[in-house]
Amino acid sequence: MNRLEKQFAFIKEIDKEKNIIRQTYLSDGIHKENDAEHAWHLGIMAILLSEYANEEIDLLKTVTMLLIHDVVEIDAGDTYAYDEEGLKTQKDREEKAAQRLFSLLPIDQKEKLKSLWEEFEEGKTPEARFAHTIDNIQPVMLNDVTDGKAWQERGIHIDQILKRNKNTNKGSQILWDYSYQHFIKPNLDKGKIKE
Amino acid sequence: MNRLEKQFAFIKEIDKEKNIIRQTYLSDGIHKENDAEHAWHLGIMAILLSEYANEEIDLLKTVTMLLIHDVVEIDAGDTYAYDEEGLKTQKDREEKAAQRLFSLLPIDQKEKLKSLWEEFEEGKTPEARFAHTIDNIQPVMLNDVTDGKAWQERGIHIDQILKRNKNTNKGSQILWDYSYQHFIKPNLDKGKIKE
Repeated sequence: MNRLEKQFAFIKEIDKEKNIIRQTYLSDGIHKENDAEHAWHLGIMAILLSEYANEEIDLLKTVTMLLIHDVVEIDAGDTYAYDEEGLKTQKDREEKAAQRLFSLLPIDQKEKLKSLWEEFEEGKTPEARFAHTIDNIQPVMLNDVTDGKAWQERGIHIDQILKRNKNTNKGSQILWDYSYQHFIKPNLDKGKIKE
Repeated sequence: MNRLEKQFAFIKEIDKEKNIIRQTYLSDGIHKENDAEHAWHLGIMAILLSEYANEEIDLLKTVTMLLIHDVVEIDAGDTYAYDEEGLKTQKDREEKAAQRLFSLLPIDQKEKLKSLWEEFEEGKTPEARFAHTIDNIQPVMLNDVTDGKAWQERGIHIDQILKRNKNTNKGSQILWDYSYQHFIKPNLDKGKIKE
C-alpha cells in the first residue's frame, strides 16, 4: 500500500470507535455516549479551557492526544472506571490494540501517534496531565447534568470518585475545584452519590 | 455568570450535537452518523492528511474549525447535501443558531469561535478551503465503505456529486483526485451512483 492508502486504512478503521459505548449518559439522560462523541467533546473542552492548565501546554498536541486517546478501545473495549476486574487486564489489552491499530499508518505517523498515546497513558507531561483532567471532568459534568443518574444506578461511593480523580487536579487545580464544587458535591448532598 | 460558568454553559449545550443525525451510514452500514462523530473523524483526518493541503495551513486553527463547524445544526438541523428546499433557508437558520450558541461563551471566545465558523462558511482562506475538502471527502469515503448504500437509496446522480464537490479540490488536489478515483468512480462503474 502506498502512503495515502495506509492513511485511509487507519481513517476507515477508526470509524469503529463510533460504536464503542461508554457508561456515561448524554445530557438527554437516555443515550449513552460513545468514544468518538466523547473525544470530540474533549477536544473542544481543551481548546476552550486551556487557560486553566496548571502549566503551559502545547494545545495542538493536547487536542491530538485527546482525539486519539480512545482508539485502542476498538479492540480492547471500554473499561468502566469502577470495573475492578476489567482494570487488571486493561493495560495489556490496550497495548496490543495500540500496536495493531497504529501500525495501519505509515511508519512516521505510527510512531508519532503511538508515542502520543503512550504519553497520555503515562501522564507525566503537562499536556498529558491536562488531557487527563479534561477526560475526567467531562463525564462528571454529564453525570451532574443528568441528575446523577449513572452514579445512582451503579451505587457509586464518593471515595470511588475521589480515588479515580486523585490526579485530576494535577492538570488544572481550578477545573478540579470547580468540578468538585459544582458537579460532585451537589450530588453527594442529594444522595445520588453514596457517602 | 462568571467566565467559567459561561464556558461550561456552552460545553453542556453542545452535547446536543451528539443527537443530530446525518444522512451518511457508518462503516457498519447500519447506524447513521451524528454530527459529533463526524466532527471527531474530520479532526483526526485533518491532522493525518495536512501534508496534502494545496497551501500551507495552521493546523490547530483548521482542527478547531472542523470540531466546531457543525454546532449550528443544534438549532438549524442537518441539511442534507442534496435537499434543494432546505438549502434555500439553511444560511439564515444557521446564522441565527451561531448567534445564540456562541453567545453562551465569554465575549472573547464568542468572537473567536463565531468568526472561525464564518471563515469556514465563506471558504476563502487556506484553512477553510482545506477544512471543506476534509468535510466533503469523509462522507464520500464512508459511502464507498458501505458499498454506495446512501447514494443508491437516494438515487443520487454523478452530476449532483460533482456539483457538490466543485470546490473540493481547492483545499487539496491530491485528496480530491484520490477520492474521485477510489471512492466515487468505482460506485459509478457499479451503478450505485446514477450516470
